[in-house]
Amino acid sequence: MMRTHEAGTLRAEHAGTTVVLAGWVARRRDHGGVVFIDLRDASGVAQVVFREDEHAHELRAEFCVRVTGEVRVRPAGNENPEIPTGAIEVVASEIEVLSESAPLPFPVEGTVEVSEEVRLKYRYLDMRRAEVGRAMRVRSQATYLLNDVMREHGFVYVETPDLTRSTPEGARDFLVPVRLQPGNWYALPQSPQLFKQLLMVGGMERYYQLARCFRDEDLRADRQPEFTQIDLEMSFVDQDDVMAVGEDTVVRLWREILGYEIPRPIPRMSYHEAMRRFGTDRPDLRFGVELTDMTEYFKDTAFRVFQAEHVGAVVMPGGASQTRKELDGWQDWAKARGARGLAYVLVQEDGTLGGPVAKNLSEAEVSGLAAKVGARPGDCVFFAAGRTEDARGLLGAARLEIGRRCGLIDESAWAFVWVVDFPMFEPVVDEKGNEVGWTAIHHPFTGPTPEWADNFQDDPENALAHAYDLVCNGMELGGGSIRIHKAEMQQRVFDVLGLSKDDAENKFGFLLEAFKYGPPPHGGIAFGWDRICMLLAGGESIRDVIAFPKTASGFDPLTGAPTPITAEQRRDAGVDARPKQQAKPAEG
Amino acid sequence: MMRTHEAGTLRAEHAGTTVVLAGWVARRRDHGGVVFIDLRDASGVAQVVFREDEHAHELRAEFCVRVTGEVRVRPAGNENPEIPTGAIEVVASEIEVLSESAPLPFPVEGTVEVSEEVRLKYRYLDMRRAEVGRAMRVRSQATYLLNDVMREHGFVYVETPDLTRSTPEGARDFLVPVRLQPGNWYALPQSPQLFKQLLMVGGMERYYQLARCFRDEDLRADRQPEFTQIDLEMSFVDQDDVMAVGEDTVVRLWREILGYEIPRPIPRMSYHEAMRRFGTDRPDLRFGVELTDMTEYFKDTAFRVFQAEHVGAVVMPGGASQTRKELDGWQDWAKARGARGLAYVLVQEDGTLGGPVAKNLSEAEVSGLAAKVGARPGDCVFFAAGRTEDARGLLGAARLEIGRRCGLIDESAWAFVWVVDFPMFEPVVDEKGNEVGWTAIHHPFTGPTPEWADNFQDDPENALAHAYDLVCNGMELGGGSIRIHKAEMQQRVFDVLGLSKDDAENKFGFLLEAFKYGPPPHGGIAFGWDRICMLLAGGESIRDVIAFPKTASGFDPLTGAPTPITAEQRRDAGVDARPKQQAKPAEG
Repeated sequence: MMRTHEAGTLRAEHAGTTVVLAGWVARRRDHGGVVFIDLRDASGVAQVVFREDEHAHELRAEFCVRVTGEVRVRPAGNENPEIPTGAIEVVASEIEVLSESAPLPFPVEGTVEVSEEVRLKYRYLDMRRAEVGRAMRVRSQATYLLNDVMREHGFVYVETPDLTRSTPEGARDFLVPVRLQPGNWYALPQSPQLFKQLLMVGGMERYYQLARCFRDEDLRADRQPEFTQIDLEMSFVDQDDVMAVGEDTVVRLWREILGYEIPRPIPRMSYHEAMRRFGTDRPDLRFGVELTDMTEYFKDTAFRVFQAEHVGAVVMPGGASQTRKELDGWQDWAKARGARGLAYVLVQEDGTLGGPVAKNLSEAEVSGLAAKVGARPGDCVFFAAGRTEDARGLLGAARLEIGRRCGLIDESAWAFVWVVDFPMFEPVVDEKGNEVGWTAIHHPFTGPTPEWADNFQDDPENALAHAYDLVCNGMELGGGSIRIHKAEMQQRVFDVLGLSKDDAENKFGFLLEAFKYGPPPHGGIAFGWDRICMLLAGGESIRDVIAFPKTASGFDPLTGAPTPITAEQRRDAGVDARPKQQAKPAEG
Repeated sequence: MMRTHEAGTLRAEHAGTTVVLAGWVARRRDHGGVVFIDLRDASGVAQVVFREDEHAHELRAEFCVRVTGEVRVRPAGNENPEIPTGAIEVVASEIEVLSESAPLPFPVEGTVEVSEEVRLKYRYLDMRRAEVGRAMRVRSQATYLLNDVMREHGFVYVETPDLTRSTPEGARDFLVPVRLQPGNWYALPQSPQLFKQLLMVGGMERYYQLARCFRDEDLRADRQPEFTQIDLEMSFVDQDDVMAVGEDTVVRLWREILGYEIPRPIPRMSYHEAMRRFGTDRPDLRFGVELTDMTEYFKDTAFRVFQAEHVGAVVMPGGASQTRKELDGWQDWAKARGARGLAYVLVQEDGTLGGPVAKNLSEAEVSGLAAKVGARPGDCVFFAAGRTEDARGLLGAARLEIGRRCGLIDESAWAFVWVVDFPMFEPVVDEKGNEVGWTAIHHPFTGPTPEWADNFQDDPENALAHAYDLVCNGMELGGGSIRIHKAEMQQRVFDVLGLSKDDAENKFGFLLEAFKYGPPPHGGIAFGWDRICMLLAGGESIRDVIAFPKTASGFDPLTGAPTPITAEQRRDAGVDARPKQQAKPAEG
């Protein structure tokens, strides 16, 4: 080792010790004959004092240096209680510049006021900043803890392939031309879903992997084309067993990293309850504002806007005192979300209703309204009317916005909830808006709840899936399901989906083939590791906990990827070759 | 859970307990009124007895079942000491067929005599076989242990991108078209080499990752287009520090998994010594046969074949008694390796030399030969003459073949050795065989040994790199180097390589840019995880420890990947788009 001690570990008891430190010049203060530098390494910072050393005057920020010196207790009055090494300093006898630094594109110490793209371009400098470096280390700590939990639960760590065949998931696959089989392509996995089910057929019983997944999706703010998921699958289990492992995982992470004890059991809420009360299947339970279903209330209304499949309301506490501009702002907000606007009434201090909607309501509608929605004088009531899903979606979003604008959200709180009993199917709608069939909400291997095992095919609209999502502070951390393991039941699902035998064979024939050979009952869950690490590190974006993230368009400002390829690369890779023969079929 | 106990955990003390087991029918023996099945789950096997149960007669191999029954001690004389549960059996009161199995393509129990391709096509059945399942579990155990070692050493687990830019490594990159930036392509990483160095510039100090790597190489027996490496990098270290971590890792794995204590320190051997004594930089030290340099001995020889840059010999103990056919076989063996043949002399029991070469040698050459090479009566001496590298390579291979044919290799032994002091450069040879320049043997960021730090450029042929490989039983387990962190030294390497500023910029400009900002001294190592797991699991191929391996041509018999893509996929992916603009350069 090029050093004897790590800078951040020095304490008063080291006084008198000669140490060799190595690290970076974090700050330099030049007081004529005496130069002070803060020397930073991964462990922290220590103050180094140079006297009469001409080299010390040449040091600049982020030079990499090795310093030999003696630890001494700082002169009285010079202690710095803000840092762990604040009681001591190192009086340098020797300094070696290991490497110099060019002027920095942005400061490593202190606040940074450059665009994220510049930070990502110089990610290696960004990473030296305390906040970014800490996020990387929290993620690492979380990864080690995760391994502990999985090992204690007897999970077998299995690595599944990244060069594989298209899987029938939601997004597009990234494709890879295969030089040795010109005209044929691999696909990068959107998840190891099929492989993890095959591992269960293979008798692994408990599989776990920190799995890289790839989805070629359109631009969205906090998406990455590649991401990491905690992927696990278990045999001979029911829903409670899988959820228990999921709880053990987050409980351990939150306890060890944040010192926060998640109350157990984590509460459960059905999908339908979540939609009804919060307008979303990812309810943020850090605050209590809830939606009110007003459909029945307005069932005979003369107000055309409220003559709809669904009318709902949500209360903004104190919202009646909003300015005209603020109320107009809500209309813009709603329009930006694709709605026509956001109807509202203002509950005046005297209990009367203000705002443009009120005068369209009957006396009876007006009189009971505040009580019905739980509004008090001074509140604003927002309404949405239309298709149930759309109206609830708008109000659910308005609820979150109310929470933010009214400061109702305790940013230090953690509100975990399992959302369960998802619908199994949702309608497929054609261009004309007609429902022309059903699609699986999770994937076609998701089983029904035990109550629906025999008859989901008779009532696809109401059939419930044996699926569960873990939600925290309004974000989905992960989700999973109990899978179908019986051919007969799988066939009924395909029938509901209108999937022919040939289609099914073509899409996932090798899984169906595997299921002929005594598949065990099994289920699993996958967690978004980037998002979990973001929460643990206190980040605002998953990019904060990804060492080398890409921008929303998939561009990497650091390496410049992606790039054009040369004609030679193109030829070599067989991009333009026609397949000589069909790849061998998966089925025998 | 669908069961109360795991089958393999039942013991005599469970007698009288009612248990619910779930697993697979491993074997069934039908004795008229009584049916015995071996019920297998991940924990092992237990015998289940059915009396008068008509369902039991319908059970077939690999049906997945749930059994309720009472544990009892087996009747005297019926114990099976071969299995841990051999003292008991479970008398079934209830059986549920969880899923049936079609007739198997090959038996799960007992030996399998089908091609590897069939095994891989039904990998989920192959995995139920004890040997394959065990290999998966050993790999998992090794992964958990690896995490322990790395955590104890303070390594930060960092995930690096898989969708990135071409890196200048030995093999071809796999390419990925980017739909959102049509005409531009990502490359899959051949290793995280550049990223791990950037993490050191970023101050991570100790980085570790179980990293997926991708190399588009030509067909070779035990290669996979994707593989896993243990990737680590450290700052402020010298070679001994990195090697110590490498040793800690293998010592722990071999101790915990195999109960074998690797003697420490692992011996070191210079590249030149390894080449001289064993004809390879991956010497198999499980046996002692060594090469003898005969160049000096034959320097005045009249035998034209031995008038060469290099003449070497290796002794085959007892080889003089080989038949004519066996001796001819060696010629074929040598020709298959691209040599003209393999000259030999046979040391007769009376000390005279036999074989066709002997008569071409002078009396003096004959008389001292056996003593010079250390041959005894009854031995055979093989010779190779030609370019040093070629001759040594042939004799090194002959040495291994001698070890195998003579049974000199102790298959239960573990012989670890560090090979160090590799040459820094090797000549680039043009089509006419002329040496026209130098190329880096590792990569252009590998530093020289301290002795060569100032003058490697003056004598590229002899300059030594600060690089090290860990070899076990003749296989390279991993390798690494101390990197260059000074721009001035890096420039001298580029000068030796004849790499212009533009070329260097183009190939790895973003790394050179990073190195402007106070890079720390650093070095690292990468281990081939598949190969290490293969050794730990006692496998013969890395495919034995890969859950879903591909064949040598990159074909996956299970999923049928790779496959042709549709015209729509091709259009969507932007495969044929011309880039609208050059991707932004990595440099500012």
